[in-house]
Amino acid sequence: MALAKKEKYNVAIVGATGAVGQVFLDILAERDFPINELRLLASKRSAGKKIKFKDTEYTVEELTHDSFKGIDIALFSAGGGRSKEFAPSAVKAGAVVIDNSSAFRMDKDVPLVVPEVNPEDAFKHNGIIANPNCTTIIMVVALKPLHDYGKIKRVIVSSYQSASGAGAKAMQELMDQAKAWSNGEPLKIEAFQHQILFNVIPHIDVFMDNGYTREEMKMYNETKKIMGDDSIEVTATCVRVPVLTAHSEAVTVETEKKITPDKARELFEQAPGIQVLDNPEKNEYPMPLFVSGKDDCYVGRIREDITKENSLNFWVVGDQLRKGAALNAIQIAELLISK
Amino acid sequence: MALAKKEKYNVAIVGATGAVGQVFLDILAERDFPINELRLLASKRSAGKKIKFKDTEYTVEELTHDSFKGIDIALFSAGGGRSKEFAPSAVKAGAVVIDNSSAFRMDKDVPLVVPEVNPEDAFKHNGIIANPNCTTIIMVVALKPLHDYGKIKRVIVSSYQSASGAGAKAMQELMDQAKAWSNGEPLKIEAFQHQILFNVIPHIDVFMDNGYTREEMKMYNETKKIMGDDSIEVTATCVRVPVLTAHSEAVTVETEKKITPDKARELFEQAPGIQVLDNPEKNEYPMPLFVSGKDDCYVGRIREDITKENSLNFWVVGDQLRKGAALNAIQIAELLISK
Repeated sequence: MALAKKEKYNVAIVGATGAVGQVFLDILAERDFPINELRLLASKRSAGKKIKFKDTEYTVEELTHDSFKGIDIALFSAGGGRSKEFAPSAVKAGAVVIDNSSAFRMDKDVPLVVPEVNPEDAFKHNGIIANPNCTTIIMVVALKPLHDYGKIKRVIVSSYQSASGAGAKAMQELMDQAKAWSNGEPLKIEAFQHQILFNVIPHIDVFMDNGYTREEMKMYNETKKIMGDDSIEVTATCVRVPVLTAHSEAVTVETEKKITPDKARELFEQAPGIQVLDNPEKNEYPMPLFVSGKDDCYVGRIREDITKENSLNFWVVGDQLRKGAALNAIQIAELLISK
Repeated sequence: MALAKKEKYNVAIVGATGAVGQVFLDILAERDFPINELRLLASKRSAGKKIKFKDTEYTVEELTHDSFKGIDIALFSAGGGRSKEFAPSAVKAGAVVIDNSSAFRMDKDVPLVVPEVNPEDAFKHNGIIANPNCTTIIMVVALKPLHDYGKIKRVIVSSYQSASGAGAKAMQELMDQAKAWSNGEPLKIEAFQHQILFNVIPHIDVFMDNGYTREEMKMYNETKKIMGDDSIEVTATCVRVPVLTAHSEAVTVETEKKITPDKARELFEQAPGIQVLDNPEKNEYPMPLFVSGKDDCYVGRIREDITKENSLNFWVVGDQLRKGAALNAIQIAELLISK
């Protein structure tokens, strides 16, 4: 269901003081989203904080069940618990919720949408639309054109996920550890299970009974739902690396129909939301340091898998706060107001 | 051919002032290798430097074609160019060369040896034995028991390689970048193609025509040779990460015979050179920060690949200066003097 046509919309941001919250504001401003009233919501602890949007200063309000009167679009990014508790109140108040948490993603009644992949699903909502997991979004943007051309059977993916994927505090912790290390001071470890500076941690979200982490199982389950094809299999290893922003992924894709590297390059180049950066002779390939702050997902290292027929390797990097979170949610909102 | 039995051996280290050179000395001392004369060799630029071994100070000598008189074992780690130029002189002088560079690895007449995998090959040398690529060594130590049990058909691996894999200067560059960043100073980029602090670089060694890097093709070619089985296929993505020491690898292994996670754990536990660290409920899994300085390769995240029959995922971390280089070379030397 599209939103009732208006010139401008009342927008609430839940989790306005978090890592994704700030990027919501940046992107709403950049894209000049038609906002009438902007309501910034957060926990009691953050209420009263001042945040600037365009040229106006807004005061963060405490999130309550009564926060959503008159709101058309509520962008949630305050963790699954808050989404579960407050999204129904927003829906009851008449808002469409676009939720960045994992709370509703696998609910049958909730569409899980990446606008470059399954835009049509956005209109099938019952008040809530789920924004997929960041690592999954970045991957499926790249998988979509390959699937349309050659039908994907299996994906093997290893991720290199940045600290800010775990929130603003986690990113700060990496920076603090770098400074403490440089000054010969002891390193504080709070946001992650272990020191992240000069380390990699093969553990994101909790462990499941099958030995995968929940993050890895999100890539498995969400890819099937977003792509609308239960036959696509995804085995993932998700790893935290000492990078501030942007997630990288090494992907092997097995397809029914052969996709040569040249064909893949052509498919990527024609697909929305993708930039091909694949000039090894100039040392040009996607890297998190240079993709941070960019809207598109960057693909490179495209090569035929020499170990299997109809298998392709590539490397994709996306800003997980933008395309992996805030931008994708706002693109969904744009879809809803476009019809 | 084993070395002629002696009580103690004359040992030369070529590249004594490099990252691996220092670890050669550490490990020779730790393992109390039976050394009569120790000769430290390096480029003219480093000649004259003093290096302590056990309680004696040694003066680094300039590497020349006449450097090897009376030497029994020459440990080379000074780059492929120097190995190609000087290893034949060492052989001519009667030494057995154990070469850490890629210069001779794929030569038919040169055995490529990981003592836990193919110790018998060490004795088939004609004066030169090659030490495999660091990332490959760490992987094949873990692959060997799986292959013996279930016959490996295909390996898909993504690496997380530390800065010191590119040498002592590269590791220093990462530390210098951390300090410069902490002090708000500009970062110097010399050792790598791009900034490595807070970044990952999907590019190690040069690019080949097929789109893989030479590092990735080393994993393909060297695995076949070390395992003595040309049918094992390896597709790799090799990535530099901002870690000081120890390489990590996310590995998917497809086998002819099913290997359950429990069976794999049992096989790993019984295999030489491997420690299993796989207690997700305690947040215990191998990480470079904790494997640095260790001799064994650490395996964890062992789980059934839910996307394919007879496929297994695991994570392996090894200190690439030790098992991936100096330790492996010295283990080869120990083999040669053991018979």
